[in-house]
Amino acid sequence: MTTQEIILDAAEEVFAESGFHGATTRAIAEKAQANSALIHYYFGNKENLFEAVFARRSEAINEERSARLAEMHRGRAVTLEAVLDALLRPTVSLGRDPARGGAHYARLVVHVASGTDERSRRLTGERYNAIALRFIDEIAAVTPGLSRKDTVRCYMNAIAIGMSLMAPTGRAEDLSKGALRDDDIDAIIDGAVRFIAAGTRAIADAGGHGDGVEEYPGTPRQ
Amino acid sequence: MTTQEIILDAAEEVFAESGFHGATTRAIAEKAQANSALIHYYFGNKENLFEAVFARRSEAINEERSARLAEMHRGRAVTLEAVLDALLRPTVSLGRDPARGGAHYARLVVHVASGTDERSRRLTGERYNAIALRFIDEIAAVTPGLSRKDTVRCYMNAIAIGMSLMAPTGRAEDLSKGALRDDDIDAIIDGAVRFIAAGTRAIADAGGHGDGVEEYPGTPRQ
Repeated sequence: MTTQEIILDAAEEVFAESGFHGATTRAIAEKAQANSALIHYYFGNKENLFEAVFARRSEAINEERSARLAEMHRGRAVTLEAVLDALLRPTVSLGRDPARGGAHYARLVVHVASGTDERSRRLTGERYNAIALRFIDEIAAVTPGLSRKDTVRCYMNAIAIGMSLMAPTGRAEDLSKGALRDDDIDAIIDGAVRFIAAGTRAIADAGGHGDGVEEYPGTPRQ
Repeated sequence: MTTQEIILDAAEEVFAESGFHGATTRAIAEKAQANSALIHYYFGNKENLFEAVFARRSEAINEERSARLAEMHRGRAVTLEAVLDALLRPTVSLGRDPARGGAHYARLVVHVASGTDERSRRLTGERYNAIALRFIDEIAAVTPGLSRKDTVRCYMNAIAIGMSLMAPTGRAEDLSKGALRDDDIDAIIDGAVRFIAAGTRAIADAGGHGDGVEEYPGTPRQ
């Protein structure tokens, strides 16, 4: 591993735990067993280091997503399931596969994605809007009857599930008393894809998410 | 507002931004415009303050969830949609309604829920396992054919979507170029409930999430 990679790994872990504001270059230097001057030499200030950490993983994820979409269009069946698989597999396997070391990024990305501050919104947009819009187009193309705005919501639901599946927290194992395994990546992704595909088709078939006009059946509202 | 509430609000914001490790009692005191001695007087150490912040919101959420379940069983139709509404409405409206001030908790709870460290796992379990198991039972009771372990996965998917909808990040507005509104709480919850209900029923109808045995249709695996 290069010095830069060691620093990025350490920074990723510290930023995942403490966010941008709570993290210090000193804590990152300690974890990397490097000195702060070296971090400044390679990455400049904390802001640049944060962006570099976020960029490294998001670029890898989005390249893999693009490659999977391209592969799908080169001959595999173009289905909603294949699109969702291309969306989720790169993130879930990054977070869950110990060999790829993405568990800290899993926590960092939900922290940034749930932030309402300018930095979080800007980074999420810069790193994920282009790929999001591509997937929104792909989902719409294979789901007749789904409006653009419902497609955005379905995409956001897919991403929410995907992010929650990245972090190997052991909670599904816990709640199922061990029946679900945290390391069964294929089963986790396949199940998520089926669930999201059905939800998406249901929204399309019902003619929309509702937007305050329709009620879901059987549930009078207060 | 009491001094304790002012301190809890400030602590919630700092913990949401910087996690447990990155937050300092000094930063919390500054935000609360209180002195650190007062924080120690009311809450003891940082660990206790963190738990108090988490407890305040999780108790309110879970009481509201329980009340909604009880109301459903007292006479409203017992449907999967009603169960999911009882699960999601308390969190989403807490996060989205500016008057309730839960936007910071929205970010804190995803940070804790995505943590693999002992504190995060313990707090999530202590605060949310009992209510999770109740909802898992309720979902299973209204969804014929759903195995226990698939119910846990569907519950986890519901929670993932619910958590993602708590934080008013503006991303859905962004990606839909303003067509989706971040403040339309009823539409957001109704749409999520329909989506999750359809996903859950699809898993039940297919006889399970797959667990590596079945393939989803139309998508040959590499």
